[in-house]
Amino acid sequence: MAFAAPFAFGTDANAPATSDRSAIKALAFDVGGTVFDWHSTVRDEIDALAHTKGLDLHGAEFANQWRRGMFDVLGRVIRGQSEWMNVDAMHRIVLDRLLDQYSIQSLSEREKLDLNQAWHRIEPWPDVKSGLQRLRTRYIVSGFSVLSFRLLVDVSKRAGLHWDALISCEFLKYYKPDPRAYHGAVALLGLKPAEVMMVAAHPMDLRGALSAGLRAAYVPRPAEYGAPDHRDLRPDPDFEVVAKDFNDLADKLV
Amino acid sequence: MAFAAPFAFGTDANAPATSDRSAIKALAFDVGGTVFDWHSTVRDEIDALAHTKGLDLHGAEFANQWRRGMFDVLGRVIRGQSEWMNVDAMHRIVLDRLLDQYSIQSLSEREKLDLNQAWHRIEPWPDVKSGLQRLRTRYIVSGFSVLSFRLLVDVSKRAGLHWDALISCEFLKYYKPDPRAYHGAVALLGLKPAEVMMVAAHPMDLRGALSAGLRAAYVPRPAEYGAPDHRDLRPDPDFEVVAKDFNDLADKLV
Repeated sequence: MAFAAPFAFGTDANAPATSDRSAIKALAFDVGGTVFDWHSTVRDEIDALAHTKGLDLHGAEFANQWRRGMFDVLGRVIRGQSEWMNVDAMHRIVLDRLLDQYSIQSLSEREKLDLNQAWHRIEPWPDVKSGLQRLRTRYIVSGFSVLSFRLLVDVSKRAGLHWDALISCEFLKYYKPDPRAYHGAVALLGLKPAEVMMVAAHPMDLRGALSAGLRAAYVPRPAEYGAPDHRDLRPDPDFEVVAKDFNDLADKLV
Repeated sequence: MAFAAPFAFGTDANAPATSDRSAIKALAFDVGGTVFDWHSTVRDEIDALAHTKGLDLHGAEFANQWRRGMFDVLGRVIRGQSEWMNVDAMHRIVLDRLLDQYSIQSLSEREKLDLNQAWHRIEPWPDVKSGLQRLRTRYIVSGFSVLSFRLLVDVSKRAGLHWDALISCEFLKYYKPDPRAYHGAVALLGLKPAEVMMVAAHPMDLRGALSAGLRAAYVPRPAEYGAPDHRDLRPDPDFEVVAKDFNDLADKLV
């Protein structure tokens, strides 16, 4: 699938005059949505289960509600309104809530556990593998995600992706966009914030990174929620690099 | 270099009758000494610096004192007698102490910083790359080390090693052999202790793993400190697998 970009992908137009690319030592990639297309796999697994079990479920809609519900729980954890948990536990809470909401009672515990694991079977966007490989020749390339460590390990291993580092907020004990999460990742990389460029499809994540002193590269993924939707994908003027995919990012950064 | 093994490398002799290899989901590798030959690089860099600067230093001896001194500081951190720090900071403390002891005053701060980074340039034993590659076809293969996260990232990237996961005690906030370190690693892998096999060249690390409920594979590295020395390398009877290198380990586990 290809979607028309709603804005230009120029480099110069977006790069602040002060930018010095040689100071960048590491790229920290958001993972869910930015590196991996979670929507397609989760949608397909729900549709397949609905077909097998005769459930009245719409995979695409359910997948998006599940993802958005996870971020609601994450927000509660960040605000201290809920106890600390990893994203696998959040996915399970939201799954149970959605099944309740759709009055689905015919799934066994084993089926629910397996469905929750669909998030460990998501696949990368097609440009990811070649783009990361090129970027690794020049930078420390790290995943940096709210997703659970095991989820990051599973999806990377399935896809044959080679990271230099995988940093999960699960072990930082702070979730993005809390500035302590970005500072924790930067400290583990043994760098200064300005030496790390956050790469994400989500403006909120990049704004968090910028607030914490990191640099920001924006790679919008218009199809993250399936068909292009009404999300505002326009880059902030202070996103230093805007790229249409990871190959374009490598063209601009390597 | 090859050294005669001081004991037999049988599998059956060492495997408890109850062992079930199919239950093992992940292998957690100790890194310094087990995966990487720290001695050769650190020795050579000290010898080269001594030559350039006309210092009266013996690289092999200095490297070993440095390594042992790091473990002394680590012990103090584990016992709460010293504040938390990562192993890079420990290396630096011990370096300054040793330079003092040898009355070396002619190194600049920059030279000391660079020498401390020698630990980020160590190379893997020759059997590592092929062994890990085979083991990754069946298991989640993780580094699990007291060394700093950035050190693990640097040495792995230099060597082109592909891990599924890299777990540093730096972010677990407990150092091996504290049982909380093993439990922290197991939790991040989303597994039960009995599903994780610790692989190490150091009996103390394996005993810590066994106490925490993990399984243990022993890969002695007789040349870890240079020429074979007087360390007792005999395996405990409860080390389930004993292998002479990572290829042998792959023969026994894949």
